[in-house]
Amino acid sequence: MRTLYHWPLCPFCRKVRLALEEKKLDFKCVIEYVWREREEFLELNPLGQVPVLVEENKTILLDSTAIVEYLDEVYPEKKLLGQSVTQRTESRRVMAYFDTKFNCEVTSKLVFEKTLKRHFGLGYTDSNIIREGTKNLKKHLDYICWLIGRRHWLSGDHFSLADIAAVAHLSSLDYLGHISWEHYPEIYDWYSRVKSRPSMRPLLEDRLPGLAPSGHYQDLDF
Amino acid sequence: MRTLYHWPLCPFCRKVRLALEEKKLDFKCVIEYVWREREEFLELNPLGQVPVLVEENKTILLDSTAIVEYLDEVYPEKKLLGQSVTQRTESRRVMAYFDTKFNCEVTSKLVFEKTLKRHFGLGYTDSNIIREGTKNLKKHLDYICWLIGRRHWLSGDHFSLADIAAVAHLSSLDYLGHISWEHYPEIYDWYSRVKSRPSMRPLLEDRLPGLAPSGHYQDLDF
Repeated sequence: MRTLYHWPLCPFCRKVRLALEEKKLDFKCVIEYVWREREEFLELNPLGQVPVLVEENKTILLDSTAIVEYLDEVYPEKKLLGQSVTQRTESRRVMAYFDTKFNCEVTSKLVFEKTLKRHFGLGYTDSNIIREGTKNLKKHLDYICWLIGRRHWLSGDHFSLADIAAVAHLSSLDYLGHISWEHYPEIYDWYSRVKSRPSMRPLLEDRLPGLAPSGHYQDLDF
Repeated sequence: MRTLYHWPLCPFCRKVRLALEEKKLDFKCVIEYVWREREEFLELNPLGQVPVLVEENKTILLDSTAIVEYLDEVYPEKKLLGQSVTQRTESRRVMAYFDTKFNCEVTSKLVFEKTLKRHFGLGYTDSNIIREGTKNLKKHLDYICWLIGRRHWLSGDHFSLADIAAVAHLSSLDYLGHISWEHYPEIYDWYSRVKSRPSMRPLLEDRLPGLAPSGHYQDLDF
């Protein structure tokens, strides 16, 4: 069976899970506590990071973007990047925006700071970093509003890896209760549509020990 | 004429310049002082980041990875990702390693801190951050040694976007004199081979006002 080593709130792992679900590919999820530096896991990825996808033929795949590009090439029945080069370029651009700029300025400051940081022995949550991440989030939500105000899905007329990358980050933040949906009706409308897709169900059932999700995290009518 | 808006030491801009040069595509470079938030530039990219590539037909392309993927699709005469899905997946993985983890832990701490930071009004170089970046660089050079010790080019038998992304970061660091080549003979051998490619010439001629490159930056025999 295809195996995905992941950590539930990691946006990069969520991106791969959603891509696998959208393509209806069977896989089992194994939670990897990366900070424990398990030897068998480091043999799969010497950098010690999730996600790692091991295909049935034992091919080891690393890095969320390399993995989803691979999945779109090898299992092309349902294309997630887009049919034309223009669509693919825009999907890649929006995906990269979430995985680099948004991650660096928001997700890593809020999700990493509140969850993984202490496991890595880097001390406890720093309220200055949380404040900075929260301030950055507002600026980015304005940009996402502007983007989604011009199109039905984040990269154009079709659901794509741009939406998958976006929801991977935003759903992690929503788990921690960081998004005030009432202030962003355009994003709320788009997120409701993504949230009701069958691919989202497993993610909505995620629970971190000792850290319950925000009250509306699982509700489709939130 | 195809136009690339860039900033000389930005590794993401260097990646696009090298890809354009390797594909022998004509383009002119325009230095964009992003911190000035020039209105015409923000119309091209509301996020205010370089690189931005404007094609001759006026198509606007953003994000270095989306741009190089686009170039490899639209100008396939010389493939830079690789011929097989396995090669492409490995090129993408190594490229992503440099553009995310290496950038976050090394390039942004050393290059950004020493050059762009003050332009953005974020104060002067912080010696703690430089120390941290220098320490991280050693760890990453060990990983790169391990990688290049197993193959001729960074993603396998052929020169690819993995090498381009790597040299984009390492050459920026070399401009600032951060790499002690004598300690890393495997990386030195690989870097010498890349440095002698015609695509590297324009980058080796880059000069930042008030910040001369390290003594050996331009030398092919360094």
